[in-house]
Amino acid sequence: MKSFIDRLIEKVKKKRSHVCVGLDPHLEQLPKHLMNKAREKVKGDNSRQVALGLAIWWFNKTIIDNIYDIAVAVKPQVAFYEKVGSSGMLALKETVQYARQKGLLVILDGKRNDIGSTARAYAEAYLKGQGLDNSIQADAITVNPYLGVDGIKPFIENKENGAFVLIKTSNPSSGDLQDLVLKDGNKLYQKMGQYVSEWGQNSIGENGYSNLGAVVGATYPEELKILRYEMPHSYFLIPGFGVQGGSVLDVVNGFNDDGLGAIVNSSRGIIFAYRREPWSGRFVEKEFGLAARAAALDMKDKINSALGGRR
Amino acid sequence: MKSFIDRLIEKVKKKRSHVCVGLDPHLEQLPKHLMNKAREKVKGDNSRQVALGLAIWWFNKTIIDNIYDIAVAVKPQVAFYEKVGSSGMLALKETVQYARQKGLLVILDGKRNDIGSTARAYAEAYLKGQGLDNSIQADAITVNPYLGVDGIKPFIENKENGAFVLIKTSNPSSGDLQDLVLKDGNKLYQKMGQYVSEWGQNSIGENGYSNLGAVVGATYPEELKILRYEMPHSYFLIPGFGVQGGSVLDVVNGFNDDGLGAIVNSSRGIIFAYRREPWSGRFVEKEFGLAARAAALDMKDKINSALGGRR
Repeated sequence: MKSFIDRLIEKVKKKRSHVCVGLDPHLEQLPKHLMNKAREKVKGDNSRQVALGLAIWWFNKTIIDNIYDIAVAVKPQVAFYEKVGSSGMLALKETVQYARQKGLLVILDGKRNDIGSTARAYAEAYLKGQGLDNSIQADAITVNPYLGVDGIKPFIENKENGAFVLIKTSNPSSGDLQDLVLKDGNKLYQKMGQYVSEWGQNSIGENGYSNLGAVVGATYPEELKILRYEMPHSYFLIPGFGVQGGSVLDVVNGFNDDGLGAIVNSSRGIIFAYRREPWSGRFVEKEFGLAARAAALDMKDKINSALGGRR
Repeated sequence: MKSFIDRLIEKVKKKRSHVCVGLDPHLEQLPKHLMNKAREKVKGDNSRQVALGLAIWWFNKTIIDNIYDIAVAVKPQVAFYEKVGSSGMLALKETVQYARQKGLLVILDGKRNDIGSTARAYAEAYLKGQGLDNSIQADAITVNPYLGVDGIKPFIENKENGAFVLIKTSNPSSGDLQDLVLKDGNKLYQKMGQYVSEWGQNSIGENGYSNLGAVVGATYPEELKILRYEMPHSYFLIPGFGVQGGSVLDVVNGFNDDGLGAIVNSSRGIIFAYRREPWSGRFVEKEFGLAARAAALDMKDKINSALGGRR
């Protein structure tokens, strides 16, 4: 199989899309009709958990059915599945499998960080081709660099798999650590960007990008610009678009002149579009899939327009 | 219920022990008779995964039965359970429940790091009193500070629960990021220590220690000494003792003059003691529980001797 990054770029070109859809099933926001149907179907021990898992899976399936031709990847946030215990993990497994069947790449957002045998255990738990028969088989995973290179390498040992390292995250307090100024005048996130460039040198594919990418938030457009310059061969996964505040003009800072170099993630802005303006006026709750489709299409077109001549 | 940190200190005093046992069930090291027995018992779909989960649970139960009166806490490394999918997570749930029944505190080693609603989802997934009926109910969790305070606060909102923040980890490449020198001359791990001290100020219990603790590796004794001085109210969880190379003289650097301030973790050195000198000469594989007991007792006594007059 081709390397992760070449498969990603192939999809980007073919679909003319840089959209990643975050599958973060906030339980309290799931459509009521799905929850009711799941509760009716499931009786007995642990029925609440099992019903929640089922509702999540149905929800994700509808989202995927509506966006698979628009997006290049989905990004399930593992915490929301872990929260529902083994039923949630089963829903995650089904979601990953289905998304791949529908031609989407799956980036598992777990922000894992551990070393040696433990990092290897995570790679085996979550990445395709590395795990037990029955494990979750994603294409890539997000990882946290606090432990240094020991915590990164095991995730890119197999070229089928990619990893996106947290560099500059989209949250308000991301500067506590990431913006600390080092002795040489660089900020910490810049240094981490340099590290990730180095660590990814041996995993560069046919298109000139590495299997080791970076997470850089849309909410920090200046930092995005700096990192884009310093990390020419790293693909960026850009969260924070839309509901969190990142605009289309912000995210274009994450792209190279070849029109490549970044995929942009939106979670709530797409999967719960039916609850938000302007889509809430056009779609009712039962039409959450159609609302997601409309929002994803809108996002795709806006990014493509903003990129303009770059592609 | 008393705060996490006061419950921990109560156990430390009552048991005269600073020992934490890491429950990291490396599949390839599990005793063969347990694996065989589990395989015989389980037939049908997914039988390999279910058998692995069962073997892990039996293994952990025997370890707990042999060390519950010697250790104050157990620290399951979540990756090893996730690796076995939903069967592994069930084994983790049973382990956590049983360890608590036997009077041990449970520190889940998941190194989680996320923000806002996602961090909250993790707290609900893993901490007692915050989750769904059926969730895992640990006392504390390890967290990674790369995202800043947004990623820490949700784990200590409930005083029943504690969190240990990674500050200086025990692995060889921990310096890549943690030892970077800042403009003010401090190293990054020192700055993180100062942050964690501040963030934990509002969670100080009856004994003068905070519910927000720190992970500091035994393999970096100088850093342990520096952090002990800079973080007088933070309890340390010290990994890296034994097999990873940290000695008894190294770990005493993590204690305050009151004989408190740290618990020391050993994983392979205890749970797989039967495979290692000097215990492998005295115990056969089937006696892995007795070997673990002997190793835990030895560790407890050595730490207490080294602390000497401090308690």
